[in-house]
Amino acid sequence: MVTSKNCIIRLSRYKNALYRLLSLGFLKVFSETLADEVGVTASQVRKDFSLFGISGNKKGGYQIEALLNKLSSILGKDKLQKVIVVGSGHIGTALMKYKGFEKEGIKITAGFDIDPAKCNKSGTVPVLPIGELKDFVKNDAIKIGIIATPDIAAQQVADLMFEAGIKGILNFAPIRIKSPQDSIVNYVNLELELENVIYFVNALNKPLSLSKDSA
Amino acid sequence: MVTSKNCIIRLSRYKNALYRLLSLGFLKVFSETLADEVGVTASQVRKDFSLFGISGNKKGGYQIEALLNKLSSILGKDKLQKVIVVGSGHIGTALMKYKGFEKEGIKITAGFDIDPAKCNKSGTVPVLPIGELKDFVKNDAIKIGIIATPDIAAQQVADLMFEAGIKGILNFAPIRIKSPQDSIVNYVNLELELENVIYFVNALNKPLSLSKDSA
Repeated sequence: MVTSKNCIIRLSRYKNALYRLLSLGFLKVFSETLADEVGVTASQVRKDFSLFGISGNKKGGYQIEALLNKLSSILGKDKLQKVIVVGSGHIGTALMKYKGFEKEGIKITAGFDIDPAKCNKSGTVPVLPIGELKDFVKNDAIKIGIIATPDIAAQQVADLMFEAGIKGILNFAPIRIKSPQDSIVNYVNLELELENVIYFVNALNKPLSLSKDSA
Repeated sequence: MVTSKNCIIRLSRYKNALYRLLSLGFLKVFSETLADEVGVTASQVRKDFSLFGISGNKKGGYQIEALLNKLSSILGKDKLQKVIVVGSGHIGTALMKYKGFEKEGIKITAGFDIDPAKCNKSGTVPVLPIGELKDFVKNDAIKIGIIATPDIAAQQVADLMFEAGIKGILNFAPIRIKSPQDSIVNYVNLELELENVIYFVNALNKPLSLSKDSA
Protein backbone atom coordinates (compact mmCIF):
# COMPACT_ATOMS: atom_id res chain seq x y z
CA MET A 1 0.00 0.00 0.00
CA VAL A 2 2.64 2.45 1.08
CA THR A 3 4.88 1.64 -1.85
CA SER A 4 2.10 2.37 -4.36
CA LYS A 5 1.37 5.64 -2.62
CA ASN A 6 5.01 6.71 -2.76
CA CYS A 7 5.16 5.95 -6.45
CA ILE A 8 2.00 7.95 -7.14
CA ILE A 9 3.34 10.88 -5.16
CA ARG A 10 6.53 10.79 -7.22
CA LEU A 11 4.60 10.57 -10.50
CA SER A 12 2.57 13.67 -9.67
CA ARG A 13 5.74 15.50 -8.63
CA TYR A 14 7.33 14.57 -11.98
CA LYS A 15 4.21 15.89 -13.68
CA ASN A 16 4.38 19.23 -11.88
CA ALA A 17 8.11 19.58 -12.59
CA LEU A 18 7.50 18.74 -16.26
CA TYR A 19 4.82 21.42 -16.56
CA ARG A 20 7.29 23.91 -15.11
CA LEU A 21 10.04 22.86 -17.53
CA LEU A 22 7.60 23.03 -20.45
CA SER A 23 6.54 26.54 -19.43
CA LEU A 24 10.22 27.54 -19.42
CA GLY A 25 10.47 26.43 -23.05
CA PHE A 26 12.10 23.00 -22.64
CA LEU A 27 10.96 20.23 -24.99
CA LYS A 28 13.10 17.38 -23.67
CA VAL A 29 14.41 16.44 -20.26
CA PHE A 30 17.04 14.04 -18.92
CA SER A 31 16.25 11.80 -15.97
CA GLU A 32 19.04 13.59 -14.04
CA THR A 33 17.33 16.99 -14.46
CA LEU A 34 13.94 15.64 -13.49
CA ALA A 35 15.49 13.84 -10.51
CA ASP A 36 17.06 17.11 -9.41
CA GLU A 37 13.78 19.01 -9.67
CA VAL A 38 11.90 16.43 -7.64
CA GLY A 39 14.61 15.47 -5.17
CA VAL A 40 15.07 11.79 -6.01
CA THR A 41 17.84 9.88 -7.81
CA ALA A 42 17.98 9.63 -11.59
CA SER A 43 17.80 5.85 -11.37
CA GLN A 44 14.56 6.18 -9.36
CA VAL A 45 13.09 8.31 -12.16
CA ARG A 46 14.07 5.76 -14.80
CA LYS A 47 12.76 2.90 -12.67
CA ASP A 48 9.40 4.62 -12.06
CA PHE A 49 8.94 5.36 -15.74
CA SER A 50 9.97 1.90 -16.89
CA LEU A 51 7.19 0.43 -14.69
CA PHE A 52 4.74 2.11 -17.04
CA GLY A 53 6.60 1.27 -20.21
CA ILE A 54 8.01 4.77 -20.62
CA SER A 55 11.57 4.75 -21.82
CA GLY A 56 13.90 7.62 -22.60
CA ASN A 57 16.74 8.00 -25.05
CA LYS A 58 20.22 8.05 -23.54
CA LYS A 59 21.33 10.88 -25.80
CA GLY A 60 18.10 12.82 -26.09
CA GLY A 61 16.29 12.19 -22.84
CA TYR A 62 12.50 12.13 -22.56
CA GLN A 63 10.05 14.10 -24.72
CA ILE A 64 8.29 16.31 -22.15
CA GLU A 65 4.94 16.54 -23.87
CA ALA A 66 4.64 12.82 -24.55
CA LEU A 67 5.66 12.16 -20.97
CA LEU A 68 3.01 14.55 -19.65
CA ASN A 69 0.27 12.90 -21.70
CA LYS A 70 1.31 9.49 -20.46
CA LEU A 71 1.49 10.63 -16.81
CA SER A 72 -1.89 12.36 -17.03
CA SER A 73 -3.56 9.24 -18.32
CA ILE A 74 -1.85 7.06 -15.68
CA LEU A 75 -2.88 9.45 -12.95
CA GLY A 76 -6.48 9.80 -14.15
CA LYS A 77 -6.07 13.53 -14.53
CA ASP A 78 -8.52 13.84 -17.40
CA LYS A 79 -11.85 14.25 -15.60
CA LEU A 80 -13.18 16.92 -13.21
CA GLN A 81 -12.86 15.89 -9.57
CA LYS A 82 -15.53 16.93 -7.10
CA VAL A 83 -14.34 17.46 -3.54
CA ILE A 84 -16.11 18.44 -0.31
CA VAL A 85 -14.68 20.29 2.68
CA VAL A 86 -15.78 19.66 6.28
CA GLY A 87 -15.18 22.53 8.70
CA SER A 88 -15.78 26.11 7.68
CA GLY A 89 -13.33 27.89 9.96
CA HIS A 90 -10.53 30.05 8.55
CA ILE A 91 -8.66 27.25 6.80
CA GLY A 92 -11.77 25.47 5.53
CA THR A 93 -13.22 28.68 4.13
CA ALA A 94 -9.90 29.59 2.49
CA LEU A 95 -9.83 26.17 0.83
CA MET A 96 -13.41 26.60 -0.44
CA LYS A 97 -12.34 29.88 -2.06
CA TYR A 98 -8.87 28.74 -3.17
CA LYS A 99 -8.32 29.44 -6.88
CA GLY A 100 -5.41 27.03 -7.29
CA PHE A 101 -7.61 23.92 -7.42
CA GLU A 102 -9.59 24.92 -10.50
CA LYS A 103 -6.70 24.81 -12.92
CA GLU A 104 -5.95 21.27 -11.74
CA GLY A 105 -9.46 20.15 -12.59
CA ILE A 106 -10.59 20.07 -8.97
CA LYS A 107 -13.92 21.58 -7.92
CA ILE A 108 -14.95 22.09 -4.30
CA THR A 109 -18.69 21.47 -4.57
CA ALA A 110 -19.77 21.97 -0.95
CA GLY A 111 -18.65 22.70 2.57
CA PHE A 112 -20.14 21.20 5.73
CA ASP A 113 -20.21 22.48 9.30
CA ILE A 114 -21.70 21.38 12.60
CA ASP A 115 -22.59 25.00 13.46
CA PRO A 116 -25.87 26.04 11.77
CA ALA A 117 -24.76 29.69 12.04
CA LYS A 118 -21.88 28.95 9.67
CA CYS A 119 -24.07 27.24 7.10
CA ASN A 120 -25.05 29.15 3.99
CA LYS A 121 -26.77 27.36 1.14
CA SER A 122 -26.57 30.26 -1.28
CA GLY A 123 -22.80 30.90 -1.38
CA THR A 124 -20.63 30.15 -4.43
CA VAL A 125 -19.66 27.05 -2.50
CA PRO A 126 -22.72 26.23 -0.31
CA VAL A 127 -21.96 25.39 3.32
CA LEU A 128 -24.43 22.73 4.50
CA PRO A 129 -25.25 21.19 7.89
CA ILE A 130 -23.07 18.14 8.63
CA GLY A 131 -26.27 16.05 8.83
CA GLU A 132 -26.65 16.44 5.06
CA LEU A 133 -23.16 15.14 4.24
CA LYS A 134 -24.07 11.49 3.77
CA ASP A 135 -26.87 12.09 1.24
CA PHE A 136 -24.89 14.75 -0.61
CA VAL A 137 -21.82 12.52 -0.98
CA LYS A 138 -23.91 9.52 -2.06
CA ASN A 139 -26.04 11.45 -4.55
CA ASP A 140 -23.02 13.07 -6.19
CA ALA A 141 -20.81 9.95 -5.91
CA ILE A 142 -18.08 12.04 -4.29
CA LYS A 143 -14.94 10.13 -3.42
CA ILE A 144 -12.67 12.88 -2.03
CA GLY A 145 -13.01 15.06 1.06
CA ILE A 146 -10.98 17.58 3.04
CA ILE A 147 -11.06 17.75 6.85
CA ALA A 148 -10.51 21.24 8.24
CA THR A 149 -12.09 20.79 11.66
CA PRO A 150 -10.53 21.02 15.12
CA ASP A 151 -8.53 17.87 15.95
CA ILE A 152 -11.05 16.55 18.47
CA ALA A 153 -13.72 16.31 15.76
CA ALA A 154 -11.54 14.93 12.98
CA GLN A 155 -11.83 11.16 13.55
CA GLN A 156 -15.61 11.33 13.91
CA VAL A 157 -15.86 13.38 10.73
CA ALA A 158 -13.58 10.94 8.91
CA ASP A 159 -15.73 7.97 10.01
CA LEU A 160 -18.79 9.75 8.67
CA MET A 161 -17.05 10.48 5.38
CA PHE A 162 -15.87 6.88 4.91
CA GLU A 163 -19.37 5.64 5.74
CA ALA A 164 -20.81 7.89 3.04
CA GLY A 165 -18.45 6.42 0.45
CA ILE A 166 -15.47 8.76 0.50
CA LYS A 167 -12.21 6.97 -0.28
CA GLY A 168 -9.61 9.71 0.01
CA ILE A 169 -9.16 12.42 2.63
CA LEU A 170 -6.80 15.35 2.87
CA ASN A 171 -6.63 16.07 6.61
CA PHE A 172 -5.61 19.47 7.99
CA ALA A 173 -6.41 18.56 11.62
CA PRO A 174 -3.19 17.74 13.49
CA ILE A 175 -4.02 14.12 14.36
CA ARG A 176 -3.60 10.72 12.66
CA ILE A 177 -6.82 9.35 11.20
CA LYS A 178 -7.74 5.66 11.43
CA SER A 179 -8.97 4.64 8.00
CA PRO A 180 -10.29 1.55 6.20
CA GLN A 181 -7.89 -0.56 4.10
CA ASP A 182 -9.32 0.61 0.78
CA SER A 183 -8.87 4.32 1.49
CA ILE A 184 -6.11 6.92 1.76
CA VAL A 185 -5.54 9.82 4.12
CA ASN A 186 -2.95 12.51 3.32
CA TYR A 187 -1.90 15.06 5.90
CA VAL A 188 -1.15 18.77 5.82
CA ASN A 189 0.03 19.72 9.30
CA LEU A 190 0.55 23.48 9.20
CA GLU A 191 2.02 23.71 12.70
CA LEU A 192 4.49 20.94 11.95
CA GLU A 193 5.57 22.47 8.64
CA LEU A 194 6.17 25.86 10.21
CA GLU A 195 7.87 24.33 13.25
CA ASN A 196 10.26 22.48 10.99
CA VAL A 197 11.33 25.75 9.40
CA ILE A 198 11.79 27.31 12.85
CA TYR A 199 13.80 24.38 14.16
CA PHE A 200 16.09 24.42 11.19
CA VAL A 201 16.71 28.15 11.45
CA ASN A 202 17.46 27.73 15.16
CA ALA A 203 19.81 24.88 14.35
CA LEU A 204 21.62 27.09 11.84
CA ASN A 205 22.30 29.58 14.61
CA LYS A 206 23.49 27.06 17.17
CA PRO A 207 24.93 24.20 15.16
CA LEU A 208 24.02 20.74 16.44
CA SER A 209 26.10 17.64 16.02
CA LEU A 210 23.99 16.65 13.07
CA SER A 211 26.78 15.93 10.65
CA LYS A 212 26.86 12.33 11.84
CA ASP A 213 23.32 11.83 10.59
CA SER A 214 23.39 9.76 7.47
CA ALA A 215 19.67 9.37 6.78
CA MET B 1 22.41 20.22 4.65
CA VAL B 2 19.67 17.87 3.54
CA THR B 3 20.65 15.25 6.10
CA SER B 4 20.39 17.75 8.96
CA LYS B 5 17.01 18.86 7.74
CA ASN B 6 15.68 15.32 7.57
CA CYS B 7 16.86 14.67 11.09
CA ILE B 8 15.19 17.82 12.40
CA ILE B 9 11.97 16.90 10.66
CA ARG B 10 12.06 13.47 12.29
CA LEU B 11 12.80 14.94 15.71
CA SER B 12 9.78 17.24 15.52
CA ARG B 13 7.60 14.36 14.34
CA TYR B 14 8.80 12.30 17.32
CA LYS B 15 7.92 15.24 19.56
CA ASN B 16 4.38 15.49 18.16
CA ALA B 17 3.84 11.73 18.45
CA LEU B 18 5.14 11.80 22.04
CA TYR B 19 2.71 14.58 22.98
CA ARG B 20 -0.08 12.47 21.53
CA LEU B 21 1.00 9.37 23.48
CA LEU B 22 1.35 11.41 26.67
CA SER B 23 -2.16 12.81 26.23
CA LEU B 24 -3.43 9.22 25.89
CA GLY B 25 -1.93 8.42 29.30
CA PHE B 26 1.29 6.67 28.29
CA LEU B 27 4.41 7.33 30.40
CA LYS B 28 6.94 5.22 28.50
CA VAL B 29 7.37 4.29 24.85
CA PHE B 30 9.41 1.74 22.93
CA SER B 31 11.35 2.76 19.84
CA GLU B 32 9.15 0.36 17.83
CA THR B 33 5.95 2.19 18.85
CA LEU B 34 7.43 5.60 18.15
CA ALA B 35 8.76 4.36 14.80
CA ASP B 36 5.28 3.14 13.92
CA GLU B 37 3.66 6.46 14.83
CA VAL B 38 6.12 8.42 12.72
CA GLY B 39 6.59 6.03 9.84
CA VAL B 40 10.31 5.24 10.17
CA THR B 41 12.19 2.15 11.36
CA ALA B 42 12.86 1.50 15.05
CA SER B 43 16.59 1.50 14.38
CA GLN B 44 16.27 4.98 12.84
CA VAL B 45 14.59 6.19 16.03
CA ARG B 46 17.36 4.74 18.21
CA LYS B 47 20.03 6.15 15.92
CA ASP B 48 18.50 9.65 15.93
CA PHE B 49 18.23 9.66 19.71
CA SER B 50 21.72 8.29 20.27
CA LEU B 51 23.12 11.24 18.27
CA PHE B 52 21.92 13.48 21.08
CA GLY B 53 22.97 11.19 23.89
CA ILE B 54 19.44 9.93 24.54
CA SER B 55 19.35 6.23 25.32
CA GLY B 56 16.41 3.98 26.15
CA ASN B 57 16.11 0.88 28.24
CA LYS B 58 15.62 -2.36 26.35
CA LYS B 59 13.03 -3.57 28.80
CA GLY B 60 11.33 -0.30 29.72
CA GLY B 61 11.71 1.86 26.63
CA TYR B 62 12.04 5.65 26.83
CA GLN B 63 10.50 7.90 29.50
CA ILE B 64 8.17 10.09 27.44
CA GLU B 65 8.36 13.21 29.57
CA ALA B 66 12.16 13.20 29.83
CA LEU B 67 12.33 12.61 26.08
CA LEU B 68 10.00 15.56 25.40
CA ASN B 69 12.07 17.90 27.56
CA LYS B 70 15.23 16.84 25.79
CA LEU B 71 13.68 17.20 22.33
CA SER B 72 12.23 20.62 23.14
CA SER B 73 15.60 21.92 24.25
CA ILE B 74 17.34 20.44 21.17
CA LEU B 75 14.74 21.95 18.89
CA GLY B 76 14.80 25.39 20.55
CA LYS B 77 11.13 25.17 21.35
CA ASP B 78 11.36 27.24 24.52
CA LYS B 79 11.01 30.79 23.16
CA LEU B 80 8.20 32.59 21.29
CA GLN B 81 8.78 32.65 17.53
CA LYS B 82 7.66 35.68 15.56
CA VAL B 83 6.62 35.00 11.99
CA ILE B 84 5.40 37.24 9.14
CA VAL B 85 3.08 36.33 6.27
CA VAL B 86 3.37 37.83 2.78
CA GLY B 87 0.19 37.76 0.70
CA SER B 88 -3.21 38.45 2.23
CA GLY B 89 -5.44 36.44 -0.08
CA HIS B 90 -7.63 33.63 1.26
CA ILE B 91 -4.80 31.37 2.39
CA GLY B 92 -2.61 34.18 3.80
CA THR B 93 -5.51 35.63 5.76
CA ALA B 94 -6.49 32.20 7.09
CA LEU B 95 -2.90 31.68 8.28
CA MET B 96 -2.87 35.07 10.02
CA LYS B 97 -6.01 34.03 11.90
CA TYR B 98 -5.04 30.38 12.42
CA LYS B 99 -5.33 29.41 16.09
CA GLY B 100 -3.14 26.31 15.84
CA PHE B 101 0.14 28.26 15.82
CA GLU B 102 -0.32 29.89 19.22
CA LYS B 103 -0.16 26.70 21.24
CA GLU B 104 3.14 25.90 19.51
CA GLY B 105 4.67 29.18 20.65
CA ILE B 106 4.38 30.76 17.21
CA LYS B 107 3.04 34.29 16.78
CA ILE B 108 2.17 35.80 13.40
CA THR B 109 3.13 39.43 14.03
CA ALA B 110 2.28 41.00 10.67
CA GLY B 111 1.04 40.39 7.17
CA PHE B 112 2.25 42.18 4.04
CA ASP B 113 0.55 42.79 0.72
CA ILE B 114 1.37 44.62 -2.51
CA ASP B 115 -2.24 45.85 -2.78
CA PRO B 116 -2.80 48.95 -0.58
CA ALA B 117 -6.53 48.13 -0.50
CA LYS B 118 -5.75 44.92 1.39
CA CYS B 119 -3.56 46.66 3.97
CA ASN B 120 -5.01 47.34 7.39
CA LYS B 121 -2.73 48.55 10.17
CA SER B 122 -5.33 48.24 12.90
CA GLY B 123 -6.27 44.54 12.62
CA THR B 124 -5.32 41.96 15.27
CA VAL B 125 -2.56 41.04 12.85
CA PRO B 126 -1.77 44.27 10.95
CA VAL B 127 -1.44 43.95 7.18
CA LEU B 128 1.26 46.37 5.98
CA PRO B 129 2.42 47.51 2.53
CA ILE B 130 5.16 45.24 1.15
CA GLY B 131 7.47 48.30 1.07
CA GLU B 132 7.58 48.22 4.86
CA LEU B 133 8.67 44.59 5.09
CA LYS B 134 12.41 45.19 5.18
CA ASP B 135 12.36 47.66 8.08
CA PHE B 136 9.79 45.63 10.00
CA VAL B 137 11.80 42.41 9.72
CA LYS B 138 15.06 44.13 10.63
CA ASN B 139 13.60 46.04 13.59
CA ASP B 140 11.96 42.95 15.04
CA ALA B 141 14.84 40.61 14.10
CA ILE B 142 12.36 38.24 12.47
CA LYS B 143 13.90 35.12 10.96
CA ILE B 144 10.83 33.24 9.70
CA GLY B 145 8.33 34.12 6.98
CA ILE B 146 5.44 32.53 5.12
CA ILE B 147 4.80 33.12 1.40
CA ALA B 148 1.12 32.97 0.42
CA THR B 149 1.29 34.97 -2.82
CA PRO B 150 0.51 33.87 -6.39
CA ASP B 151 3.36 31.80 -7.84
CA ILE B 152 4.57 34.55 -10.21
CA ALA B 153 5.36 36.81 -7.24
CA ALA B 154 6.88 34.20 -4.94
CA GLN B 155 10.57 34.31 -5.96
CA GLN B 156 10.66 38.12 -5.84
CA VAL B 157 9.04 38.09 -2.40
CA ALA B 158 11.50 35.43 -1.22
CA ASP B 159 14.47 37.50 -2.43
CA LEU B 160 13.12 40.49 -0.51
CA MET B 161 12.65 38.38 2.62
CA PHE B 162 16.17 36.91 2.47
CA GLU B 163 17.59 40.41 1.90
CA ALA B 164 15.79 41.62 5.03
CA GLY B 165 17.39 38.86 7.10
CA ILE B 166 14.83 36.08 7.00
CA LYS B 167 16.43 32.63 7.14
CA GLY B 168 13.47 30.30 6.92
CA ILE B 169 10.43 30.35 4.62
CA LEU B 170 7.31 28.23 4.48
CA ASN B 171 6.13 28.59 0.90
CA PHE B 172 2.52 27.98 -0.17
CA ALA B 173 3.05 29.20 -3.75
CA PRO B 174 3.37 26.20 -6.09
CA ILE B 175 6.92 26.90 -7.32
CA ARG B 176 10.43 26.02 -6.15
CA ILE B 177 12.24 28.95 -4.50
CA LYS B 178 15.94 29.65 -5.09
CA SER B 179 17.45 30.34 -1.69
CA PRO B 180 20.84 31.23 -0.17
CA GLN B 181 22.99 28.44 1.34
CA ASP B 182 22.33 29.49 4.94
CA SER B 183 18.55 29.39 4.64
CA ILE B 184 15.73 26.87 4.40
CA VAL B 185 12.53 26.79 2.38
CA ASN B 186 9.75 24.29 3.20
CA TYR B 187 6.82 23.76 0.88
CA VAL B 188 3.10 23.26 1.33
CA ASN B 189 1.64 22.61 -2.09
CA LEU B 190 -2.12 22.33 -1.58
CA GLU B 191 -2.88 21.35 -5.18
CA LEU B 192 -0.24 18.63 -5.08
CA GLU B 193 -1.45 17.23 -1.75
CA LEU B 194 -5.03 17.05 -2.94
CA GLU B 195 -4.03 15.68 -6.33
CA ASN B 196 -2.10 12.90 -4.63
CA VAL B 197 -5.25 11.84 -2.78
CA ILE B 198 -7.22 11.92 -6.03
CA TYR B 199 -4.63 9.93 -7.94
CA PHE B 200 -4.51 7.29 -5.27
CA VAL B 201 -8.27 6.93 -5.12
CA ASN B 202 -8.36 6.63 -8.92
CA ALA B 203 -5.60 4.05 -8.76
CA LEU B 204 -7.63 2.06 -6.23
CA ASN B 205 -10.47 1.88 -8.73
CA LYS B 206 -8.34 0.85 -11.70
CA PRO B 207 -5.36 -0.99 -10.22
CA LEU B 208 -2.02 -0.11 -11.76
CA SER B 209 0.95 -2.44 -11.99
CA LEU B 210 2.46 -0.75 -8.97
CA SER B 211 3.25 -3.86 -7.01
CA LYS B 212 6.70 -3.98 -8.59
CA ASP B 213 7.55 -0.63 -7.01
CA SER B 214 10.03 -1.18 -4.24
CA ALA B 215 10.73 2.39 -3.16
